[in-house]
Amino acid sequence: MSEDNKYKIDACFSPHLYPVYADDESIVVVIDVFRATSAICVAFHHGADKIIPVATVEEAQSYKNQGFLAGAERNAIKLDGFDFGNSPFDYMGDHVKGKTIALTTTNGTQAIEAARNAYKVVVGSFLNIDVLCEWLMKQNRGITLLCSGWKNKFNLEDTLYAGAVTEKIFSLSKNYKLGDGCLALKYLYEQAQHEPIKFLVNASHKERLARLGLKKDIKYCLTPNLAPVIPVLEGKYLVKLNP
Amino acid sequence: MSEDNKYKIDACFSPHLYPVYADDESIVVVIDVFRATSAICVAFHHGADKIIPVATVEEAQSYKNQGFLAGAERNAIKLDGFDFGNSPFDYMGDHVKGKTIALTTTNGTQAIEAARNAYKVVVGSFLNIDVLCEWLMKQNRGITLLCSGWKNKFNLEDTLYAGAVTEKIFSLSKNYKLGDGCLALKYLYEQAQHEPIKFLVNASHKERLARLGLKKDIKYCLTPNLAPVIPVLEGKYLVKLNP
Repeated sequence: MSEDNKYKIDACFSPHLYPVYADDESIVVVIDVFRATSAICVAFHHGADKIIPVATVEEAQSYKNQGFLAGAERNAIKLDGFDFGNSPFDYMGDHVKGKTIALTTTNGTQAIEAARNAYKVVVGSFLNIDVLCEWLMKQNRGITLLCSGWKNKFNLEDTLYAGAVTEKIFSLSKNYKLGDGCLALKYLYEQAQHEPIKFLVNASHKERLARLGLKKDIKYCLTPNLAPVIPVLEGKYLVKLNP
Repeated sequence: MSEDNKYKIDACFSPHLYPVYADDESIVVVIDVFRATSAICVAFHHGADKIIPVATVEEAQSYKNQGFLAGAERNAIKLDGFDFGNSPFDYMGDHVKGKTIALTTTNGTQAIEAARNAYKVVVGSFLNIDVLCEWLMKQNRGITLLCSGWKNKFNLEDTLYAGAVTEKIFSLSKNYKLGDGCLALKYLYEQAQHEPIKFLVNASHKERLARLGLKKDIKYCLTPNLAPVIPVLEGKYLVKLNP
């Protein structure tokens, strides 16, 4: 495959920048490792039927008032009056099976909102990395790795994951070329891959989570393939893709 | 100095994201290695009096019509009817001495425009890296490294330079803490520093410049300390700072 015909993988480091990266053809992978997209993968792995990602707490409250289960997190803390925060451990068990859950988070659901009109939007985390990469490589399309970041700033953990996806796909397939963002990520990931927690030791959001006593969440969210499902956006719902 | 009292260095990878990083206290270093901020350093090193960075070609044309020298570049090419493009070689020699030059470029002057209301805006390139870092460390303030990128996308060469500044300041002073962007850059720069041209071999804009026969510009723009001056924004003018 000539360079010109290869599909491009690029990384966008903030939902606020997504309009600069948007095109009509690429698949967008939304990434919020700590913890929204990890929690979403876990919910579907435990049998949730649908997730309704919403940007505001008011929208989540409105779904809650209509009788839906609802999760709401701001600044890494579960909001009072909601069923869940964004810890993956909140979404494990029979209480999510067959349910539709509304969810709003500080960063992840904002990124889904930003990419809503893309050709296709899927949800990525370390928990589904292998099944997601295998599926992506079968689609014969460009890929935009959309890091949710922290309040629209670059963050290290989403970047690490985007680097892991880049490395995996680029090493398995000759059909892709890398944008500048992914070139940088590939270097980063090569350094970080053997000790990801050490790499993240100074990351601002990891420190925030550790202060909140969420080291168990951090470790879980960095473990590959614990929830091998692919959440995909269909209209206003995230549903489990049947590959 | 306790962690809480340290000054923050962070990197912003696109002018479009600058509002997310803006604060009232930090010094902004505008970076467009290939080639606007390199050319600006060269112009002052060769005695230019003032540079008027403008966002649009129309503004540059208006200054030209008033008798000023004017540079205009879009998509790496000098525009017809202007005195200069954005090659540093355009700005070497007696023809710039004592002159005021209007300048518009695809990325660099857009970044200056974005940061215009910051506490202070200075211009960074490899050509002035040591004198700039020494000056920055004397200011006792936070630092925002604003990468111009390519049409608001992340690019590799500005990132490499931001990593070089991060590495230099962080290794010489204990007064700084790093934001997530700079943590990533520090890793990147440690890998890239010994062979920067090899690191940039696949960078999209370097390829663009190489296609245009500008390898001489690339090499020059990556050479440290050839134009040891600090351009600073004062009102609508860039002038040479007297440290």
